[in-house]
Amino acid sequence: MNDGPLVGVVMGSKSDYEVLSAAVEILRALEIPHEAKVVSAHRTPDLLFHYAETARERGLRVIIAGAGGAAHLPGMLAAKTLVPVLGVPVPATALNGLDSLLSIVQMPKGIPVGTLAIGKPGAANAAILAAEMLATTDEALYHRLSQWRAARTQEVLGQELPA
Amino acid sequence: MNDGPLVGVVMGSKSDYEVLSAAVEILRALEIPHEAKVVSAHRTPDLLFHYAETARERGLRVIIAGAGGAAHLPGMLAAKTLVPVLGVPVPATALNGLDSLLSIVQMPKGIPVGTLAIGKPGAANAAILAAEMLATTDEALYHRLSQWRAARTQEVLGQELPA
Amino acid sequence: MNDGPLVGVVMGSKSDYEVLSAAVEILRALEIPHEAKVVSAHRTPDLLFHYAETARERGLRVIIAGAGGAAHLPGMLAAKTLVPVLGVPVPATALNGLDSLLSIVQMPKGIPVGTLAIGKPGAANAAILAAEMLATTDEALYHRLSQWRAARTQEVLGQELPA
Amino acid sequence: MNDGPLVGVVMGSKSDYEVLSAAVEILRALEIPHEAKVVSAHRTPDLLFHYAETARERGLRVIIAGAGGAAHLPGMLAAKTLVPVLGVPVPATALNGLDSLLSIVQMPKGIPVGTLAIGKPGAANAAILAAEMLATTDEALYHRLSQWRAARTQEVLGQELPA
Amino acid sequence: MNDGPLVGVVMGSKSDYEVLSAAVEILRALEIPHEAKVVSAHRTPDLLFHYAETARERGLRVIIAGAGGAAHLPGMLAAKTLVPVLGVPVPATALNGLDSLLSIVQMPKGIPVGTLAIGKPGAANAAILAAEMLATTDEALYHRLSQWRAARTQEVLGQELPA
Amino acid sequence: MNDGPLVGVVMGSKSDYEVLSAAVEILRALEIPHEAKVVSAHRTPDLLFHYAETARERGLRVIIAGAGGAAHLPGMLAAKTLVPVLGVPVPATALNGLDSLLSIVQMPKGIPVGTLAIGKPGAANAAILAAEMLATTDEALYHRLSQWRAARTQEVLGQELPA
Amino acid sequence: MNDGPLVGVVMGSKSDYEVLSAAVEILRALEIPHEAKVVSAHRTPDLLFHYAETARERGLRVIIAGAGGAAHLPGMLAAKTLVPVLGVPVPATALNGLDSLLSIVQMPKGIPVGTLAIGKPGAANAAILAAEMLATTDEALYHRLSQWRAARTQEVLGQELPA
Amino acid sequence: MNDGPLVGVVMGSKSDYEVLSAAVEILRALEIPHEAKVVSAHRTPDLLFHYAETARERGLRVIIAGAGGAAHLPGMLAAKTLVPVLGVPVPATALNGLDSLLSIVQMPKGIPVGTLAIGKPGAANAAILAAEMLATTDEALYHRLSQWRAARTQEVLGQELPA
Repeated sequence: MNDGPLVGVVMGSKSDYEVLSAAVEILRALEIPHEAKVVSAHRTPDLLFHYAETARERGLRVIIAGAGGAAHLPGMLAAKTLVPVLGVPVPATALNGLDSLLSIVQMPKGIPVGTLAIGKPGAANAAILAAEMLATTDEALYHRLSQWRAARTQEVLGQELPA
Repeated sequence: MNDGPLVGVVMGSKSDYEVLSAAVEILRALEIPHEAKVVSAHRTPDLLFHYAETARERGLRVIIAGAGGAAHLPGMLAAKTLVPVLGVPVPATALNGLDSLLSIVQMPKGIPVGTLAIGKPGAANAAILAAEMLATTDEALYHRLSQWRAARTQEVLGQELPA
Repeated sequence: MNDGPLVGVVMGSKSDYEVLSAAVEILRALEIPHEAKVVSAHRTPDLLFHYAETARERGLRVIIAGAGGAAHLPGMLAAKTLVPVLGVPVPATALNGLDSLLSIVQMPKGIPVGTLAIGKPGAANAAILAAEMLATTDEALYHRLSQWRAARTQEVLGQELPA
Repeated sequence: MNDGPLVGVVMGSKSDYEVLSAAVEILRALEIPHEAKVVSAHRTPDLLFHYAETARERGLRVIIAGAGGAAHLPGMLAAKTLVPVLGVPVPATALNGLDSLLSIVQMPKGIPVGTLAIGKPGAANAAILAAEMLATTDEALYHRLSQWRAARTQEVLGQELPA
Repeated sequence: MNDGPLVGVVMGSKSDYEVLSAAVEILRALEIPHEAKVVSAHRTPDLLFHYAETARERGLRVIIAGAGGAAHLPGMLAAKTLVPVLGVPVPATALNGLDSLLSIVQMPKGIPVGTLAIGKPGAANAAILAAEMLATTDEALYHRLSQWRAARTQEVLGQELPA
Repeated sequence: MNDGPLVGVVMGSKSDYEVLSAAVEILRALEIPHEAKVVSAHRTPDLLFHYAETARERGLRVIIAGAGGAAHLPGMLAAKTLVPVLGVPVPATALNGLDSLLSIVQMPKGIPVGTLAIGKPGAANAAILAAEMLATTDEALYHRLSQWRAARTQEVLGQELPA
Repeated sequence: MNDGPLVGVVMGSKSDYEVLSAAVEILRALEIPHEAKVVSAHRTPDLLFHYAETARERGLRVIIAGAGGAAHLPGMLAAKTLVPVLGVPVPATALNGLDSLLSIVQMPKGIPVGTLAIGKPGAANAAILAAEMLATTDEALYHRLSQWRAARTQEVLGQELPA
Repeated sequence: MNDGPLVGVVMGSKSDYEVLSAAVEILRALEIPHEAKVVSAHRTPDLLFHYAETARERGLRVIIAGAGGAAHLPGMLAAKTLVPVLGVPVPATALNGLDSLLSIVQMPKGIPVGTLAIGKPGAANAAILAAEMLATTDEALYHRLSQWRAARTQEVLGQELPA
C-alpha cells in the first residue's frame, strides 16, 4: 500500500465544508490517510472526471462526495470510476436536503452510490462506513474502530436524565 | 446556418423514448431540424461530455434532455456547454418523477436547466419552448408556431360536454 | 434590433425582488438590455395580459417571471405570448417554495414554462439561461457569457479548505 | 332572480369532466340552475377572462372550477371577478393531484379560492358548498339540501358489516 | 335580517388568533358583522356541536374555522350544520401546516369545507371569500368589496422597484 | 367484567371494512370479545358522540377507529371518551393514505390517538396492540398472544428462498 | 401490583429529553409511577433488548419510546416484548420529524407501535394514552384523568380573544 | 480467506425476494460467494442479532439488507456489527418506499448504512457496490467488474431509437 490518501473527501463548494468537516474529523480520529478537495460537478466537470479517472491509480479506496440541491457530484464520480462512492446530501436549498437526498440515492441500475443521512450525521457516517470497508482487511483499523464504537456506547450508558 | 439539426433530443435510456417521443413529434410537426439519441450520464459519461462539447459547433441551438430517478443528464450537459438545455423529468421510479424533477430543477447558481413538467406533457412542452426560442429569430417558424397554438385554442373551443 | 430591453423580468410583488434581483444582477453583468416590473397575476390580471400581448412587438426575446405560493404569473404569461417564458419559484409561504415550484413547472401540454430552481439560485439561473438563448445568435454575448462561466470555474479551482 | 344558471361549472379540458360530472350530478339532484363549460386557462385565456368578467351580470352566484397539474383556472377566475370561486384539484399528472391542490389552494392574500378535495369527492363537495351558499337565502333549497344530507346519514345508519 | 353577526370566526386555540386575526381585520374593514371565539374540536367537542347546531338560527351565514395539526374543527362544524364552512390551515406543528391543510381539505363526499391557504394569507382570504358570498345578495357590500379589491390593484401598480 | 365486547372497531364507511377486517380477524383469532360498526364522523356525528360517550359504561376497554382522507373519526372519539383510541389510516384518496395518516396522528396535546400504519397492516396491528393492552391484566390472553407472536417467528424461520 | 414503575419512558439520546420531558410531566401530574432512561437502539442495542425482555417482569405496563431520524427504538422494543409500546417521533433532523414519524408508524403486520404526534404534543399524549390504558382498570386514576381533561376544557372555555 | 460467503443478503420477508433477487443475480454474475436469508428485524430480532454478531467471524465482508415500511433491518444490523451494511428500501406499503428510504438512510451519527435506490435498481446496485468494495483488494474481481460495466456502456451505445 502506498502512503497516499485512502479516502478522498470531495464537495461541490467550499461552503459544504461545514457539513463535510464531520467526515474529515472522523477520518482523523481513526488515523485514516485522507484528502479533502472542492470539486464541483457543474462548475468544474473536467476536474470531476479527472478526479474519478485517477482515483484508483492514486490509491484511493473510497470516495466520499457531498453536494446540495440537484446533487450530481457523487453519481457522476461513480459513473467514472469503480472505486466505491459514498454520497452525503447537503441541506443547501429551500427543500432542506430532500432534493439532494433524492438526487444522490435514486441512481439507476449499474452505477451505485452508497448514500448516507442528510447533513452532518451523514458526513460523519460516510467516514465511519469508509472505515468499516477498510477495516475488513486492516485489523489495526478494525481495533481502532471497535474502540471508537465502544466509546459511543459508553457515552449513552453514562447519560443521566434530570431528576 | 448549416443544414444540420438545430435541436438535439437526448435521453438516458431507450425506454425513456416513450416519454421523449412527444418532443420529437412536436419538432416534426413544426418542421424543426432535430436529432434524437440515447446518451446516458451514468453509463456513457464520456459520450455525454463529447455531445455537450461539440453541440454548438455542430449547430445545435437547444438541447432537450430527459432522464428518470437521480436524473443527472440535463445538468451535466449544461455544465459542459453554453447551448441552452431544457430538462424533462421522466417518471421511471417508485417516486413517480418527483425524484427526477428535483434532480433536474434544483441546479445551483451558474448552471441553468430550464425544466418542464414530469412526463409526456413536459416532453412536448420542451419542444414547444425550443420552438419559441428559435422563433425569436425565425419569422416563418413563428408563423407555424402561432398556427399550432391557435389550433390548440380551437380544440378547446370546440369541445362539447355531455348534455 | 431595437434599443429596448431584450429580457423582461416580472414578479408578483415588490417583496419578490429580494429573490429576483439575482436575475437583474446577472443581466447587468452580462450587459443584456432588460427591464424589471411588478406584475401580479391575481391583483393586476389585465396588466399581465397587456404585458404578454405586447412583449414581442416591444422586442422582448425572453420573459423571466417569478412568483410564490400558487404561482400563476409565469404560466399565464406563457398562455398569452409566444415569447419564451422562464419561471422562478419564490419561497413565500409555509411550504418553502414547493407549492410555487409545482404551480410553475407542471404546465399542461401546449404552454411551456422553463422552470428554474427555487429562490435566488433559480433567479440567477433564469438570467443565465436567457443569456444562453440570446447568445445562440449573438457572438459578443456568447463571449461575455463564456468568460463569466470560466470565472466561476476559476472560483472553484481557487477554493482552499481549512487545513 | 333571472332564469339563467346560478352556478357555473368550468374545467380546463373535456377530460376533466370525468371528475367534474360529480358536481353537475349534485346540482341536478338539488335542482340548482347551472351550466358546464370547458374553459382552459392556458389554451383559452381570453375566454377565461370573458367568462369571469361577465359572470356576475349573467347572474352567476358561484363558479366551480376544476383543473389539473399547474392548475391556474380557479385562481385566475377569482382574479377577474368577485363572484365566489370554488376550486377542484383534478388528479391529472404523475403527482396525483398534489400539484393541482397546491396550485389552487395556496392563493396569496386578496384573491381567495375555496378549495375542495382532490378528485370526485371534491367536485361533489364543491356543488354541495355552492348549494349551502345559495341556501343561506333560499329556504326551499335549504329544505332540499337538508333532505339530501339526511339521506346520507340514513345510508350510513343502514350499512351492515359482514357477520 | 337580524343585527347579530353574519360571520363566525372560530379557532381551536387562543394561540391561533395570531393567524385568524387576519380574517377579523378584513371583516372589520368591510363592515361585516362578525364574532370571534375559541372553540376546540378536541377539548370542547360539545361546544363545537352547540356552535354548529345554533349557527343558522343565530343568523350566521358563513363560518370561518382555523386549526392546526390534525385540524378537525372545520370538518366537524361542517358535519353539524348547513351553514357554509371555510377552513384555514394553521401552521402549528413541525410539518408547517401541510398536516392541517390535508386534514381540512380532504373531506369525503357529502361534507364540504372550502379551504384557503395555510396561515395568514388564508385567514384573510377566508374573510374575503365570506364577503364575496354575502355580496351576492348585498349590493352595498359588493361596492365596498370592489373598492377594497381596486385598492389592492392600485397598490401593485404603484410599486416601484429599486433602480 | 361483563360479557359484552371489550374492543369496539368502528370505521367511517362500509367500504373501509376491506381494511378494518384485518383487525376483526386478529381479535377473533385471539378470542377477544369485540364489535364492529360503521360510524361516520361527518355523516353521523351524533352517533359518533353517542358511541364515545357510552363506550366505557358498555365495557369497552379499547376503541379501534379507521378512516380515510381527512380522517376525523379517531380524534373525535378520543375527544369524547377516556377509553383509549387506536387509529388506522385508510388509503382512500389520491394521496394514498398520507392525508389520513397526518389527520389521525398529529393530534394536539391533550387528546391522544395511538396511530398505526396505513392500511391492512395497521388494522391488524391495532388489534394486536389492543390485545397487548388487555393482556397486561389478563394472563390467559397474554398466553394466547405469546403463542400468536411465536407462530409469526416460526413462519419467518421456516421461509426458504428460491435456490 | 408492585411498587415499581408502571410506565417506562425511554429515548435514544439525552438530547431527546427536551421533547420527552413532556411525557414525564404528565405522568407526574397524574401520579403514575414511572421511570425515564436513555436507551439507544443503535448505540446500545443490547441494553434495548434487555430493557424489552425484562419490562413485563419488572411490572411495566406501558413503554413510551421517543427517537428521531431513522427511529428504530420503538419498533425494536415492540419486537422484543408484548408490553404495549407507544412511539413519539422526535424532530431531530433536516426533515423535521417526517422521517421519524414514518420510521415509527409504518410497522409491518404483527408488531404494533401506537404512534403519537411529532414532538412535544406527541410526548404529552403518549403519557395521556398510557394513563387511559392504565385507567381502564384503575378507578382512582380514571378519576384523576377525568379531572385533568376537564381542566383542559375549562382552559379553552376561559380563553378570551382580544377585543 | 475461507471458502464461505463474502456477502450476506438478508431481507425482512420472503416476499422481499422479488426485489432482492436483483442483488443475488449480480453477485452470481460477478462470481462473488454469497448467501441469502430471510431475517426479520421485528419477527426474529434474536436471529438478527445473532446474524450480525457472527457476520465477521463467518467471513462476511459486506451485508446487504432490504426491508419495507418502517425498515429497521439494515440499521439494527449496523448497530451490532462493524461489517459494512448496505440498505435497500423495498416499496412494500402505500407510501411506495419513501417510508423505507427514510427509515434506512436517516441513521444517526455513529451507525452508518450505505443506502441505495428504492426497489430493484437499488438491490442490483447494492451488489455492485459490494463488488466495488471487494474489488479494492481483489484484482480478478476488479477485472470482472470492469467488464460488466463496459458491457453496460456498450448496451447504451448500441441502442437505436425508432426512426
